[in-house]
Amino acid sequence: MSTEGKVIHCRAAVAWEAKKPLSIEDIEVAPPKAHEVRVKIHYTGVCHTDAYTLSGSDSEGVFPVILGHEGGGVVESVGEGVTEFQVGDHVIPLYTAECKKCKFCLSGKTNLCGSVRATQGRGLMPDETTRFTCKGKPIFHYMGTSTFSEYTVVADVSLVKVDPKPSLQKLCLLGCGVTTGFGAATRTAKVTKGSTTAIFGMGCVGLSVAQGCKANGASRIIAIDVNPKKEKIAREFGATDFVNPKDYPDTPIQQVLVDMTDGGLDYTFDCTGNVNVMRAALEACHKGWGESIVIGVAAAGQEISTRPFQLVTGRVWRGSAFGGVKGKSEMGSLVQDYLDGKLKVDEFVTHTFDFKDINKAFDAMHSGDCIRAVVTVTK
Amino acid sequence: MSTEGKVIHCRAAVAWEAKKPLSIEDIEVAPPKAHEVRVKIHYTGVCHTDAYTLSGSDSEGVFPVILGHEGGGVVESVGEGVTEFQVGDHVIPLYTAECKKCKFCLSGKTNLCGSVRATQGRGLMPDETTRFTCKGKPIFHYMGTSTFSEYTVVADVSLVKVDPKPSLQKLCLLGCGVTTGFGAATRTAKVTKGSTTAIFGMGCVGLSVAQGCKANGASRIIAIDVNPKKEKIAREFGATDFVNPKDYPDTPIQQVLVDMTDGGLDYTFDCTGNVNVMRAALEACHKGWGESIVIGVAAAGQEISTRPFQLVTGRVWRGSAFGGVKGKSEMGSLVQDYLDGKLKVDEFVTHTFDFKDINKAFDAMHSGDCIRAVVTVTK
Repeated sequence: MSTEGKVIHCRAAVAWEAKKPLSIEDIEVAPPKAHEVRVKIHYTGVCHTDAYTLSGSDSEGVFPVILGHEGGGVVESVGEGVTEFQVGDHVIPLYTAECKKCKFCLSGKTNLCGSVRATQGRGLMPDETTRFTCKGKPIFHYMGTSTFSEYTVVADVSLVKVDPKPSLQKLCLLGCGVTTGFGAATRTAKVTKGSTTAIFGMGCVGLSVAQGCKANGASRIIAIDVNPKKEKIAREFGATDFVNPKDYPDTPIQQVLVDMTDGGLDYTFDCTGNVNVMRAALEACHKGWGESIVIGVAAAGQEISTRPFQLVTGRVWRGSAFGGVKGKSEMGSLVQDYLDGKLKVDEFVTHTFDFKDINKAFDAMHSGDCIRAVVTVTK
Repeated sequence: MSTEGKVIHCRAAVAWEAKKPLSIEDIEVAPPKAHEVRVKIHYTGVCHTDAYTLSGSDSEGVFPVILGHEGGGVVESVGEGVTEFQVGDHVIPLYTAECKKCKFCLSGKTNLCGSVRATQGRGLMPDETTRFTCKGKPIFHYMGTSTFSEYTVVADVSLVKVDPKPSLQKLCLLGCGVTTGFGAATRTAKVTKGSTTAIFGMGCVGLSVAQGCKANGASRIIAIDVNPKKEKIAREFGATDFVNPKDYPDTPIQQVLVDMTDGGLDYTFDCTGNVNVMRAALEACHKGWGESIVIGVAAAGQEISTRPFQLVTGRVWRGSAFGGVKGKSEMGSLVQDYLDGKLKVDEFVTHTFDFKDINKAFDAMHSGDCIRAVVTVTK
């Protein structure tokens, strides 16, 4: 019995308010409107950004909301005017949309599409309403994706079709962490062959930066983390060195790195969201040409600082969102890299949970030995 | 009677200590040692960096010292092993050396030569001594140039030979201000045809950024200065718009610019040395691709800050020293641009002074209607 055109009753993990665990609820998901797609979510990763918004620190955070932005699913139905997707397509929701029509998409300089940015930031679909209700109340969308739900509705610009062969349990990680890190090295920094690199924070994003640096032929990949347990996996993902700042209590980490590398790194990456680490990453760059890429999301109100002399003497400070990857145009090549064994994805999934245990996935993420916890939303 | 190989007795403007006027003194200038050149200085510009060091705010500042880094002169004699220069050559001292042998010069990525950096920063020649004495005391060098002296000695890597046709009274400005601004636009930022630009501070450097933006085909060049008198000259150097932040007392200047330009600028330049302006310049950049170039020198201890979100959403923060120009390799083409009428230089010289009145040149620089004050050191 087709659900097309009908309201779907299903389960979702609702965040009723900040700082409270998610609550599995029965919700209603309205049919997709024009240029929208309703997706049955099979798997979703849990990412620090979800936890960040749930913590109440995100100035854009609105509640009640269905979080989740790293999902994989199958198209259930499409709204009017949708020609790019068909029922049954395997898809990944994109929190960084790609409309191919706006000033940003047409610039050729950025992956930051402007088409749905304004409404997405306010937890709404492009028509300024939501498709979710629970107990009679509208529930906000999140990052244009809301993958913590058995069914979600996304704008057609916020979705990409993927090869149906690989398991969505793995592929969902291309919706955020893996792509963000790999892209930051290969698209944003464009790490050059033989160059030296350092990566702060060995979570999913940092490890994926490491594999991006390795793919681009970096001669040195220094992994930095305060958790010594990360060394083993960092090396598996391409790190040539591992530095624990706690081993140097009397020396700023930037100085440790400058000393290790005859003047500093060609590229550094912050994958921590800590503004002090962002500064260290910049100052660990080599005078004259070193570039530092900010990837981590800092808490609201936090600022980065440095002496301007750092820039005048040739260091470059830039950032990366979703790895600089254009979701529709480039996801296919990332999936192909995965299928060809060039891009590790399976190795990130260290923990799996049933949907009802999604709060345990958050707990696991905060433990030191978890890279990615993946939740089975529907079978 | 040749002075070659002999100590020269001549006049120099000595800075005995910070915050005091310069004092015209009789000094002794030793002959050039190996790989050094002694230069008779004919003209020198006075730049804010000289005033900055004289103010005592420069953490590298040492006294007593002979300041000056924007000079033009003629080779008086050369030390052992110098083959690139001959007596009578017209030359410009380079505070950014170019040895063509060090890691930096060979990188192809920067103009920041490392060959004499360490000693230059301490006011010494490469052999750790000085060539200047006055009243029996050694006097420090400054920026490897010390152009506030009738004769100076510089390392041969810190000097470039120039076409003898143009007057050194004008050409001396290629030793700092004109090159710094023009290069920041054309070499560091590589401003693209049709792009939008904004420049904070309409002194010599800012005006030269404007002509660099114009030379590269920028469609919009917004000049920003709190002195309304600067509008006329800014437009002469290529500005298409002039904005005085004082006209917008209730709106941050970055917001004024973003509103003027449908989302921000492709390139912005700080030519003020004010860290708050540097922040405004970054935040006036267009999301996704805007790049801001820090050129101004901030006071010791001052830091730049912004929210990291500014970078994550695609803005790039970089800096420029001596316009990214390699002094030996590229000065010839700048002089040729000047001779071909493509690079304005004469127009910068708004004030001229005799050497004995060099302190008046500093006063003039601090007045609003001066672009560059040039001092005649020797006739």
